[in-house]
Amino acid sequence: MTSLLNEQQTSFIPEEFSPIRWSQSALELLDQRKLPAQTEWLRFNTAPDVAKAIHDMVVRGAPAIGITAAYGVALSAIEHQQALGRGDTTAINQDIEQLAESRPTAINLMWALNQMKTILAAQPNAQVIPTLVAEAIKIHQQDIEFCHSIGRHGASLIEPQSTVYTHCNAGALATGGHGTALGVIRTAFSQNKIAQVFAGETRPWLQGARLTSWELQQAGIPTRLVTEGAAGHTLKNNEVQWVIVGADRIAADGSVANKVGTYNLAILARHHHCKVMVAAPSSTFDLTIHSGEDIPIEQRAEEEVTQLQGIQIAPEGISALNPSFDVTPPELIDAIVTEQGIIEQPDAEKIRRHFQR
Amino acid sequence: MTSLLNEQQTSFIPEEFSPIRWSQSALELLDQRKLPAQTEWLRFNTAPDVAKAIHDMVVRGAPAIGITAAYGVALSAIEHQQALGRGDTTAINQDIEQLAESRPTAINLMWALNQMKTILAAQPNAQVIPTLVAEAIKIHQQDIEFCHSIGRHGASLIEPQSTVYTHCNAGALATGGHGTALGVIRTAFSQNKIAQVFAGETRPWLQGARLTSWELQQAGIPTRLVTEGAAGHTLKNNEVQWVIVGADRIAADGSVANKVGTYNLAILARHHHCKVMVAAPSSTFDLTIHSGEDIPIEQRAEEEVTQLQGIQIAPEGISALNPSFDVTPPELIDAIVTEQGIIEQPDAEKIRRHFQR
Repeated sequence: MTSLLNEQQTSFIPEEFSPIRWSQSALELLDQRKLPAQTEWLRFNTAPDVAKAIHDMVVRGAPAIGITAAYGVALSAIEHQQALGRGDTTAINQDIEQLAESRPTAINLMWALNQMKTILAAQPNAQVIPTLVAEAIKIHQQDIEFCHSIGRHGASLIEPQSTVYTHCNAGALATGGHGTALGVIRTAFSQNKIAQVFAGETRPWLQGARLTSWELQQAGIPTRLVTEGAAGHTLKNNEVQWVIVGADRIAADGSVANKVGTYNLAILARHHHCKVMVAAPSSTFDLTIHSGEDIPIEQRAEEEVTQLQGIQIAPEGISALNPSFDVTPPELIDAIVTEQGIIEQPDAEKIRRHFQR
Repeated sequence: MTSLLNEQQTSFIPEEFSPIRWSQSALELLDQRKLPAQTEWLRFNTAPDVAKAIHDMVVRGAPAIGITAAYGVALSAIEHQQALGRGDTTAINQDIEQLAESRPTAINLMWALNQMKTILAAQPNAQVIPTLVAEAIKIHQQDIEFCHSIGRHGASLIEPQSTVYTHCNAGALATGGHGTALGVIRTAFSQNKIAQVFAGETRPWLQGARLTSWELQQAGIPTRLVTEGAAGHTLKNNEVQWVIVGADRIAADGSVANKVGTYNLAILARHHHCKVMVAAPSSTFDLTIHSGEDIPIEQRAEEEVTQLQGIQIAPEGISALNPSFDVTPPELIDAIVTEQGIIEQPDAEKIRRHFQR
C-alpha cells in the first residue's frame, strides 16, 4: 500500500526538536499530557485515532494541531486506498469532518484541512496519496520555517537585557518546531536580548509549568514559573518589557483568541505600561470573522478544574466554568508578528494590508 | 494546673461552625490542608506547635490566625505556670515571639498578640492565666460577632439578584466563624440578594477550590469555580456586580494586602466596571504603615508552585516566584467594610475618621 510513497514521503523527522514525527508512513506524537515527568511517543495509523488525540490534548497548540490534522488526512487516504481507487472519497471526507470537530477554536486546524481537501478534490483517486503525504510534510516543514521567521521579526522588537512574560505554551511543542512566542524568545535569547522569562503556569492544564518551563530549561533560558494570580504582582515589581503569547485564532479586526488568561494578562500589561506581542503564523488569521465576539470559544469539561492529575481538589458536585480560551481585543495588543512581518497596533486595515503584500 | 480556670474558661465551642475550638484547656484546629477530602481536627497543647501549625497553614486567614495565636499565648501561660509563679515571663515571651514570626503579612496576628502581651505585662504571675484564656475566648467570640456586623454592612451595598466574584477564602474557615467576604455573601444570600457566586480557585493552595466552594456548597449558595486565568473572561461575559475579598493587612492610606491574585482582580474589575469590596475587621488595619509599599509580603517555598499535593508538576530544578500576597492600591477599591461600617472610595482621611467615631 505504502509502496505508492517514495522514500522521502515515508518519513519526515525534523532536525530540530518537534513534537510531531512522520515515521514509516505513520504519525508519531509526543504525549504532552505526560510531560515533563515522562517522554512518551504514541503512534497513530488512523484519522479517528488522530482526532481523538487532538481532542484529548496528546498534542495541543494551534499550529501543531493543524500539522497533526494534515497527517491525519494522509493516514485516512492510506487506510481508504481501495475506496479511493474507485473514486470514492466518502470515508476520507468523514474522517476530515471528524478531525475538524476535534477542537473548535484553533483555526489552523481548518486551514490545514482545507489545504488537504483541495488536493483531494482535484485528484480523487489513489494517485492522490503521495501528494497528500507530501503536502502534510510540506505543512510541517513550512511551519518550522515560519516559526524561525516569526522569531526573527519578533526579536527585532526586543531591547537587550529584557525581561519578558509568557503564558501557556507557544513553543516547539505547540508547533512543528522552534515555537511562535517561544520562537521569538529563543531567537531573542540567541541575540543576548533576554535576561529573564516569567512563565505563567496556566491552569487548568499547566502548559506553562509542564511544557514551557521544560522547553526553556532545556534551552538554558533563565525562567521563573508564576501562578496566574501572581501576574499583577510580577508585572508591578519587575521591569517586564513584553508579554509574548501565541494565538489560536485571529479575527479580521485583530482580536486574538488564545489560551484563557491571555486577556487578563493584556489588561494587566496595559495597566503596567508593559507591551503585548502576539506571535502566530498567518494560518492563524480567520478573515471571515470580523470581530472577536464571533470566535467560538471551546468550553471544556468541568473536571479539568475540579480535579488535577486524577486527584479531586474541589468538593464533589461543585460546578466549574472552564473556557479554554479568551479573546483579547486589538486595542490591548502592541504587535502581531507573523512569518511575513510585524503588524504594530493592529486593526482591520493594517491586517488587510499585511496580507496584500 | 488548669484548676485555675473556671468551667467557662476550659472550653469555648461556638454554636455556629468555626475552624477553631478551645476544648478542655487545649486548642483544636480543623486541618484546612486536608479539606475538602478529609475533616480532621488536630489538638495543640503548646505555643511552638501552634506557631508551626500557623506557618504550615493548618489554619489560615488573617482573623483566624489572630485568634489561634491568642490561644497559643494562653497555652504558653498554662505550660509555663511554674515560671509565671516566680514572675518569670521569659518562656512565654519567647513563645509570643515565635508566634509573631509564624506568618509575616497578616497584621491581626500582631494585634491579637499585643492584646495578650498587655494583659501579661499588667499581671506577670500565675493569676494571669484565667485572664489570658478569657481574653483569647473573647477575641474569638468577638470575631464572630464582628463578622456578622461586616456581613450586614457589606450586604447593604448589594442589589437583589447580584452576581459576585470572590477570591481565596475569607469565610468561616478564615475567621472565628461566618467569615468576612463570605460573611457578606452569606448575609446577602439570606436577604435574596445573591444569584450566583464565582469563586477563583486560588493557586497555589487552592483555597477557593478546596475551602470557599466547600463552605458555599454547604450553605446552599450557587457557586461556580473558575481558574484565575478565566477571571477576565468571566467578568466580561457575566454581569458581575461585585468582587468581594478579605484582607490580611490594610495600610493607613487604604492599600490592601490580600491573597496574591487580588490585585489582578481589582484591575480586571475596574476594566469591566465591576466594583471591589474589601471585608475585614478593624484589627486588619495597620495605621503605622502609611502606604502599601511598606507592607511586608511573605515569599513562600517554590515547591508550593512546582508541586501539587506531593506531585511534581514542573520540571525538576525550575525556579518559581511564590509571593503569598499582593497589594491593591485604594484607588482600585470601592468600599472597605469593617464591623464599624463602610468606608467608600477609601483614602487616608476617610480611614482616620472611620476610627475616630
